[in-house]
Amino acid sequence: MTDIDQLAHQILQQDRRALARGITLVESQRSDHREQSIALIQTLQKHPKRALRIGLSGTPGVGKSTFIEAFGSLLTARGLKVAVLAVDPSSLRSGGSILGDKTRMDRLSRDPMAFIRPSPSQSHLGGVTRRSRDAVALCEAAGFDVVFIETVGVGQSETIVSEMSDIFLLLLAPAGGDELQGVKRGIMEMADIILVNKADGELSTAANRTCADYSSALRLLRKRPQDPSNFPMAMTVSALTLLGLELAWQAVLELTDWRKANGHFAGRRAQQARFWFEEDVKQGALDVLNRQEIKNEIDRLGQQVEAGELSPARAAEQILKHLSRRE
Amino acid sequence: MTDIDQLAHQILQQDRRALARGITLVESQRSDHREQSIALIQTLQKHPKRALRIGLSGTPGVGKSTFIEAFGSLLTARGLKVAVLAVDPSSLRSGGSILGDKTRMDRLSRDPMAFIRPSPSQSHLGGVTRRSRDAVALCEAAGFDVVFIETVGVGQSETIVSEMSDIFLLLLAPAGGDELQGVKRGIMEMADIILVNKADGELSTAANRTCADYSSALRLLRKRPQDPSNFPMAMTVSALTLLGLELAWQAVLELTDWRKANGHFAGRRAQQARFWFEEDVKQGALDVLNRQEIKNEIDRLGQQVEAGELSPARAAEQILKHLSRRE
Repeated sequence: MTDIDQLAHQILQQDRRALARGITLVESQRSDHREQSIALIQTLQKHPKRALRIGLSGTPGVGKSTFIEAFGSLLTARGLKVAVLAVDPSSLRSGGSILGDKTRMDRLSRDPMAFIRPSPSQSHLGGVTRRSRDAVALCEAAGFDVVFIETVGVGQSETIVSEMSDIFLLLLAPAGGDELQGVKRGIMEMADIILVNKADGELSTAANRTCADYSSALRLLRKRPQDPSNFPMAMTVSALTLLGLELAWQAVLELTDWRKANGHFAGRRAQQARFWFEEDVKQGALDVLNRQEIKNEIDRLGQQVEAGELSPARAAEQILKHLSRRE
Repeated sequence: MTDIDQLAHQILQQDRRALARGITLVESQRSDHREQSIALIQTLQKHPKRALRIGLSGTPGVGKSTFIEAFGSLLTARGLKVAVLAVDPSSLRSGGSILGDKTRMDRLSRDPMAFIRPSPSQSHLGGVTRRSRDAVALCEAAGFDVVFIETVGVGQSETIVSEMSDIFLLLLAPAGGDELQGVKRGIMEMADIILVNKADGELSTAANRTCADYSSALRLLRKRPQDPSNFPMAMTVSALTLLGLELAWQAVLELTDWRKANGHFAGRRAQQARFWFEEDVKQGALDVLNRQEIKNEIDRLGQQVEAGELSPARAAEQILKHLSRRE
């Protein structure tokens, strides 16, 4: 039995320390670790999984951590094992993570039924993406019932999280005025359930109005024949008073059961796997451009292009000839 | 003197028929034509150019053709030579073009100072993009003072047109209610001038209100230290009564002069050339995936990935090994 087989075995036995070691392995940027990671994921691939993957997005300040703390605790209290991961584009700049500070989920991080893993800091979004996908697969293999994949709402990362999730939740704050909060149409179209948070105290009225606005907006989006007619839906919640959290969970279950029954749950996972396969192939094909001598050549010709001495197409042709000569 | 040198010479002599032949050449999908196109563009690259490239986007029905007809005629009446090109993602589906019907710009198409060229129908956006860039370069070499690059507003094409333009205009219709028209923030951020069209007759009031709404929205976007403080701006125009068109042109000139004086005009062109160079390199690196035997392999492994037998990363690894063996 190789080390990787043994690690896989321990993860399948729901050994938390093995899980953490596995995640550290898939987060590593060393190329030998990368090969081991692929082998680990491929080994775990064959075992049955049952986790529900829930994507969660929301702009900063909307209360994502407080929501996950409250919602996650509700689930662990029902006997469900909950993992929380993050796809954090901000870690690209800062080297830090939105979830780096576990104390923001103080209760959940001490809950034996929960597992919280901050986002790795990486140099490019592709790295964050691949490592997050692998971490989801590891949590799934380690017997978690629910895996939350959190991201901060900045456009591209929602698409990525949506392609890793079975259900996509969008968390919003009550709007101040009568305008929608500049939520892009594309992101609204990804959402299965919009949760208007902070529906407590003085903000209750605003939350209800915002929820009604989004309900109307959702009705204008194209229908989803595969889902019950009441989806996508908007609901009010309060991570503070726990209002609506139970209902939100019931809605998640209703949608999941429906999609499992009509085959769309499995179909979507198959499509997502295909999507990531093709993304990995494209990324791999582009990796040749990261060789140092190619980078140097791109920089050298790029200066001539910027100076107007060489047309972009002619310069590109020279790089591509260089590539095919080299191989 | 080769045929290409001669064609370049004729285009520089402002020979319209040579320009049309040149555009037909760059639009061709034949690989020998592609090589000739690159040579033609590279030859023309060295000659001084003076065209102002104006990108124009707007949703269907907002009156883009009528606007270009009126605005273009205003410019030709001032002695400026005007070319109109289109980047048309809809031609991908229909094989047709938004500008295919020249009669929609009846007056301008008969104007000896103007040149209108419909969008080529192509099988992929990359093709439309490259051919449009080349056509812009040819019009510039042929001595046009202003080159309009029109696109219908569907997201991706605005980015492309923005990366080919010195000035980006966004044409909008008066809004029915008090909401902004679902214009994505990213597109608003590209716009140098928002023109609210149809500010005539019954729609005047609505147009003024819409213009005020967008003025407010533009103030909330991040500042552009390189531009005068009154930009980006929103104005009302009417392609029907010609209201505001003269002012819009003055605004275009003010912004252009400012950017030329502070170096941002040339800087932006250099950045754009660099952008297209790197895009062409990426596209070329991805072209290996279009070989038939690679496509077949992607399909074969893709089915195993969809069935859950093979992880996306492992399958991608196999494709990439196949690629490096083959070369």
